[in-house]
This record gives sequence, C-alpha cells and structure tokens, in this order.
Amino acid sequence: MLYLVRMDVRLPDTLVGQARADLLAREKAYSQELQRSGEWPHIWRVVGEYANYSVFDVDSHDRLHEVLSGLPLFPHMDIQVTPLASHPSDVRA
Amino acid sequence: MLYLVRMDVRLPDTLVGQARADLLAREKAYSQELQRSGEWPHIWRVVGEYANYSVFDVDSHDRLHEVLSGLPLFPHMDIQVTPLASHPSDVRA
Amino acid sequence: MLYLVRMDVRLPDTLVGQARADLLAREKAYSQELQRSGEWPHIWRVVGEYANYSVFDVDSHDRLHEVLSGLPLFPHMDIQVTPLASHPSDVRA
Amino acid sequence: MLYLVRMDVRLPDTLVGQARADLLAREKAYSQELQRSGEWPHIWRVVGEYANYSVFDVDSHDRLHEVLSGLPLFPHMDIQVTPLASHPSDVRA
Amino acid sequence: MLYLVRMDVRLPDTLVGQARADLLAREKAYSQELQRSGEWPHIWRVVGEYANYSVFDVDSHDRLHEVLSGLPLFPHMDIQVTPLASHPSDVRA
Amino acid sequence: MLYLVRMDVRLPDTLVGQARADLLAREKAYSQELQRSGEWPHIWRVVGEYANYSVFDVDSHDRLHEVLSGLPLFPHMDIQVTPLASHPSDVRA
Amino acid sequence: MLYLVRMDVRLPDTLVGQARADLLAREKAYSQELQRSGEWPHIWRVVGEYANYSVFDVDSHDRLHEVLSGLPLFPHMDIQVTPLASHPSDVRA
Amino acid sequence: MLYLVRMDVRLPDTLVGQARADLLAREKAYSQELQRSGEWPHIWRVVGEYANYSVFDVDSHDRLHEVLSGLPLFPHMDIQVTPLASHPSDVRA
Amino acid sequence: MLYLVRMDVRLPDTLVGQARADLLAREKAYSQELQRSGEWPHIWRVVGEYANYSVFDVDSHDRLHEVLSGLPLFPHMDIQVTPLASHPSDVRA
Amino acid sequence: MLYLVRMDVRLPDTLVGQARADLLAREKAYSQELQRSGEWPHIWRVVGEYANYSVFDVDSHDRLHEVLSGLPLFPHMDIQVTPLASHPSDVRA
Repeated sequence: MLYLVRMDVRLPDTLVGQARADLLAREKAYSQELQRSGEWPHIWRVVGEYANYSVFDVDSHDRLHEVLSGLPLFPHMDIQVTPLASHPSDVRA
Repeated sequence: MLYLVRMDVRLPDTLVGQARADLLAREKAYSQELQRSGEWPHIWRVVGEYANYSVFDVDSHDRLHEVLSGLPLFPHMDIQVTPLASHPSDVRA
Repeated sequence: MLYLVRMDVRLPDTLVGQARADLLAREKAYSQELQRSGEWPHIWRVVGEYANYSVFDVDSHDRLHEVLSGLPLFPHMDIQVTPLASHPSDVRA
Repeated sequence: MLYLVRMDVRLPDTLVGQARADLLAREKAYSQELQRSGEWPHIWRVVGEYANYSVFDVDSHDRLHEVLSGLPLFPHMDIQVTPLASHPSDVRA
Repeated sequence: MLYLVRMDVRLPDTLVGQARADLLAREKAYSQELQRSGEWPHIWRVVGEYANYSVFDVDSHDRLHEVLSGLPLFPHMDIQVTPLASHPSDVRA
Repeated sequence: MLYLVRMDVRLPDTLVGQARADLLAREKAYSQELQRSGEWPHIWRVVGEYANYSVFDVDSHDRLHEVLSGLPLFPHMDIQVTPLASHPSDVRA
Repeated sequence: MLYLVRMDVRLPDTLVGQARADLLAREKAYSQELQRSGEWPHIWRVVGEYANYSVFDVDSHDRLHEVLSGLPLFPHMDIQVTPLASHPSDVRA
Repeated sequence: MLYLVRMDVRLPDTLVGQARADLLAREKAYSQELQRSGEWPHIWRVVGEYANYSVFDVDSHDRLHEVLSGLPLFPHMDIQVTPLASHPSDVRA
Repeated sequence: MLYLVRMDVRLPDTLVGQARADLLAREKAYSQELQRSGEWPHIWRVVGEYANYSVFDVDSHDRLHEVLSGLPLFPHMDIQVTPLASHPSDVRA
Repeated sequence: MLYLVRMDVRLPDTLVGQARADLLAREKAYSQELQRSGEWPHIWRVVGEYANYSVFDVDSHDRLHEVLSGLPLFPHMDIQVTPLASHPSDVRA
C-alpha cells in the first residue's frame, strides 16, 4: 500500500558540528536502506525548503509508523501522511 | 523536471447524465495519453476524496501549464503545484 | 487496518422531499450493512453539526476508497481520512 | 458520554535521559489505569506523528478535564476535545 | 453540563418574504421556550455579524444535539460546540 | 457592556516552583476580586486545555484593556476579545 | 468608544441593473449620514478589493450592531469588529 | 511605487459563449494598454491555476485601486495587494 | 498616502528590568515624534492584546519601510501593512 | 524559467554583534553575485517585514534549490516557491 508523506525538518540551533553531521549521516543511511529494500520507493526535495515529499510502500499502518518513528531525525520533523489508492485512470493499474 | 500536483475536483450539481459521462471520458483519455507519453508518470487517488496526487515530468513551467490548463476538468478543479528537486539521499539520483 | 474518518455533509438546497428522503434511507442502509459486516465498527455524531466521526477497519486503502466513494451521500460530503496505528500504551494491543 | 480527543505531544529538547524515561513511564501507567477502568476505551497512534486519537467515556465535562489535566504529559501536549453523540444510523445505538 | 455554542447563520438568497418571516418566528419561539426551561441560559449577538454565542446547560451530548438539530434554522447554520468545565478560580463553583 | 474573552495560557518552562505558585496565586486573587465586583461575571475552563472562556461586564474598552493587561498571567497569555450585543430573542433582554 | 470594522462585500451575480444601483445608492446615503453625525469618523477603501476598513465611534455594542445590521448591504457583507482602546503612546490621548 | 498583486479568477458557470469571449478580450486589451503605458510592468501566470502574479508601478494607492477596480474581470477575481519597497541588496537600487 | 498597520509585540522572556524599560521608552519617544510630525496620525491599542492598529500617512513605500524598520521594537514585532485608498462614500474625500 | 520566491527571515536572538554583521554581509554578497549573473533578476522588500519577494530565472528546479539552500541565511528563513509561466496577455511574451 502506498502513502504520500511530507517531512519538514526543523533542527534545533543547538545541534551543531560533529553531533549534527553524525545525525544527518545516520538519517541518510537509514533512508537509503529502506529505499533499497523497496519500502521507500520515492524521495524528492521540496524546492527551497528543508523538506521532502516521499512515497512509502509498506504492508500496514503499523509498519509505516515503525519506519517513520525510527527516523533519526523524527524528533525534529513535522510529518504528514496521506494514504493513496490506485486511480481509475492509471494506465499501470 | 518533476512537479507534484494535487487536483481537487468540484463538479457543478448541474453537470449530469451524458454531458457528465462525456466530460469524464475525455478527461480519462487525455490523462492516459500523457501517461503513455511519459509526461505524467504517476497518478494516485487521495483516499476518500474526489482528488488525486500526480507527478509530472515536463521540460518547462510553460509546458506544465499547457498540460494542466488543457485538462477537460480544468474549469472544475483546484490545483496546487509543488516543484520537486532531486534529494541528496536518493539512491537513484 | 484502522482509519479515522470525518464526514461533513452539505446537502444542496434543491434536494427536498421524497428524493431527499430516499437518498438518506439508502445512505443509512449502506452504512448499516458495512457496520454489520465489521468494516465500519464505529460511527458517532459530531454534536451540533451535520457530520460524523467514524472508524473503518478494512484490508487496504483501495477497499476504503471503494467503500467511501460508494456512499450515496459521497457527492455531498467533505471527507478526511487519518490512518491509525496501534498505540504502545494500548492495554488491548 | 463519549468524547473524541486528539493529543499532540511536544517534549522540550531539554527533557532527556532518566527524567524523560520516568515521565513517559508515568504517562503509560496513568493511561493504562484509565483504560482498565473503562473511562478511556480507545487509544490509537496517528501514523507518522507523536500524537494520538482517543475516545473517553466519562460522566461529565469536569471529570474529563480532571482526567486530561492529570496526564503527566499534560504540560507538553496540545489537546482538542470533540463531544460525540449517538448516530441515528448506528446499529448498536 | 455547560457548552459554549457559536452559531453563524447563512440564509439562502432565495428565502424571502413570508417564508423567511415564518422561519425566523419559529426560530425565536423555539429558542425562547428553551431559554425559559433553563436549558439555554445565555444568548448574545456577535456584534456586526449574523451570529450568536450561546451557553447551553443540558444533561448529555445527545440532548444537546437534539436541541441544536431541532433549530428551525439548523440547515442554514454553521455551529461550533465547546464543552465547558468549572474553573478553579470561579467564586461561585 | 459584555465581552466574550478567551484566554490561552502558555507558561514558560523556566517558570517553576515557588515563583510559579506565587504567580498563580496572584492570578487567582486578582480574578476573584473582579468576579466579586461584578466586572467578571463568568469564567469557565475549556475542557482539556489550559484556557478559559470568560464574560466581562465593564463600562468601556479602556477599562477592559486595563483589567486584562493587569492580569498577572498577561505576559503568558494569548487573548481574544469578542464584543457581545443583546440578542433579539433573549427572554431577559 | 472606537471600533475598527472591516467589511467585505460579496454581491450576488443576480443583483444587476437598477436594483443594484438603488441598493448602492441607499448604502452610500446611509453611510454618509452616519459620517456626518460623527458615529462613522473614518472609511477607507482596501486597495484592490471590494472592501473597506472603517472606524466607528459609538456609545455601546448595541448601538454598533444596530448601525451595522442596518446597512443596506448588510446581507451581502462579511464584517469583522475589533474594539480599540486608547494607546499609552498616543500624543492626543 | 511598486506593488505585487495576485489575482485569482473565478468565472461563474453561467458565463459562456460570446459573452465570455467578449469579456476576456476586453480584459486582455485593458491589460495590454496598461503594460504598454508602463504602469503594469510584469504579468506572470501561476502554473496550474487561473491566476496571475503581477507587478504594478503607479503613483498612488488611489491610482492602483482605479486600475484594478476597472479590470473587466474585477467582479470575478480575488485580489491581494502587497506594497514593495526597494531592497538594500538590490544591485539596481 | 495612507496605510493601515497592525503591530503585534512579542518581547523575549530574557528582556527584563532596565534594558526593557529603556527599550520601551525609546519606542514611545520614536512613535511620538512621528505622531507630531504628521506621518503617524493614528495609534490604537487592540483591546486585550499587546498589539496596536495604526494609520500612517507617508509619501512612499520606501519611507514607510524606513519608519517601521527603525522602530526600536521592530525585531520583536509581527507587522502587517494594508494600503488604503480613498473611499467613494467618504464625505471628506 | 521563472520562479517567484518569498523569503521570511527569522534571526535567532542569540545572533548578535560581529557574527551577525558577518552573516548579513555574506548574504548580501551572495545575492548580488547572483543578481549580476542574471539568475536573480528581481528582489524587493516586503514593506514593514523582514522579508523579500524575489524572482529567479534559472535552468532547473535543482539549480534553484542549489541557489536557495546556499544562501548564508537559509537556516534562518522560511521560503515559499511559486513556478511562473508566461501569461497570454503579456505584451513581451
């Protein structure tokens, strides 16, 4: 099942230097592992904002929450989830 | 270049019967032609709403406006466009 | 999987008399069939509004959209869907 | 009487380590006691957010405020309360 | 139990003449009967708007919905309900 | 003249212990003096929130601002003021 | 006492020709009479909108509502009222 | 002086055929005359919407309102005006 | 030219004592000088809020920005500017 | 391709003195270099706010994000991007 997810990142001013670099590196590794496994098929940058739109493809709401709440940046993000159904005009559906 | 587009359809109560069926058929044909040409790579239904999220892949803003304003349902839709850039964590970028 | 759904009904002023009564009767029958099948376990009236909060328990986003878009009142409702996961403090989870 | 309650948690960055773990443990115990007593019949996680939707079943507004303002996390939450009435289509009503 | 209720009236342009006068007369009579019975202890006009803030004192959510949905103007109003608890600083509580 | 006033309290995290207790005690005393004088005839708790709806009965806008800006909690509150007129359906007017 | 009032006019499409001209003429005469009496000391056009910001100087909330609800355009306007107090930095206060 | 202006067009469903074509032709001629005179230096289409962002360069607020309220489409547009000052980083200022 | 300006003040909690008193004294002196010069003809307190509505009468957008950005409290204020034109019903215009 | 960009600056209170002056000087130099290269053809101050509206003319979404995320003030700004197409009434198009 597909979900459109928007994530807005708001890092605290006090997070700087190596601690910040480490956190961002862990976020990137975490994301790429899920992309490779197929559960996170799309990630795009929102132009001009520290934010992304992503599409997730997971088996259940519980799995999506597990994935999102496990993001290293989760405590510093506002996240909005929209469930997506197949569209009757979709040529691939 | 990629754009995330949300379309919310609000058909007038006076549009019924064959006129309505014809309009929706033209919308579907128009959409599927663009999907097949590669300019409209994704279309998803927003669950519970007469709305979709789509991704467009076109060469310019002018082309996107040409495509969207040419939709048979364009006079009956609210449309929001978000330009998307490649994400530094994207394993395919 | 569970979804919280809010439905706000806005009937057109032109819908009156028997046509209106028939539509509402079909809505009620449709809802009660889904309640009995277990896919619509909760429905509550929002106090003071022509609106309800409901919980749906279905197997997929596609099934939920099928159920909601099939509501006889669907053309006259604003619907918001929120996917629900199990809560770590839930004594029944 | 039933109330739908949404709680959004915003923990301060300064709350860490044991103080944080203790607070969350007290919140969980407080919630589970009320779930077992019957006054907090439903609690669901909002997917992707540090938030929950809950249903409370209490005898009065005063009792609900007593319960909510007694939550260990109350100073760190935004709470919205919606009173729920029985719905005329409810097969259990 | 007390509830603060805001009602915003939006009469259709097509409601004129005697039909309009009759409806407003029925609304007034309905309101005054509930004021005299004690269930509608306060009603104030919002200055400059076709709207009122009212306080209701009823035994249950179901009773409040019965009262509000029975208003002759109910189909033409937006209504917001806020449950009120006693305040610890209230000298009368 | 009557005014409906909503006050939302947002205490800073740094206000704790005796300083906090003293401030709240002064707020309560200040409120109760105005309730007894008749200028603050109603105060209700908004269920689930650190907020109140109040009705003030004062002679002028200047007097209301004097009263509100003198609240010990004024620097920590968001306040919204709605002027109320008598309602033509009010049985007491 | 002073009030800042914003009025947004939304004339129905069906109001045309002489009926429209007459209504606007009555509105203008009504407004100018109150301006001359001193109760409506300021009226400004919001640039680019069919709207105005005005300042009223009346003795009571009831009088302001009487004045505003008597506007010939009242059924076609959205009105917002903000009570104004004297400012401690005002050189004329 | 410069102003940023956003115009959102909402044509009534009843405006069709020659009446609609004539109105749009008059709008275009009106706009182009002001562009050529220098008072309307920029006009851009908002991608995907029946809307534009424009920059106006006029001598006064009164002149801008005269220009905007004279638009043939004025009764069918929502307009927002933002006054612009020169920016200290502008290399042309 | 006239502008309606709303200013909402949000002083940081860390600004206390003499530093705060000095800042407010400079703000008052700055405002009163502009009031006396005629560029700031009106200033009113929004009842119940640390905010004001003001009318400015200056020769250009650049001058207004110079005046507002020079306010000693400018770094601590949210400011909204609305350009005002003369109204066709104004008896003084 | 053109984009309208609004930037709202919110500097932290802790950024003062030379660090602040250096940051603002770097921002100005960065902006002016892009203005001279032709990629940032317009920058205007929003009157009364620490904000600007700008027009960018770049070859791709990716380039715009590169430019904006490279702004020295980027961590302290809220940015909104609107893609602009050519307008059919534009005399220069």
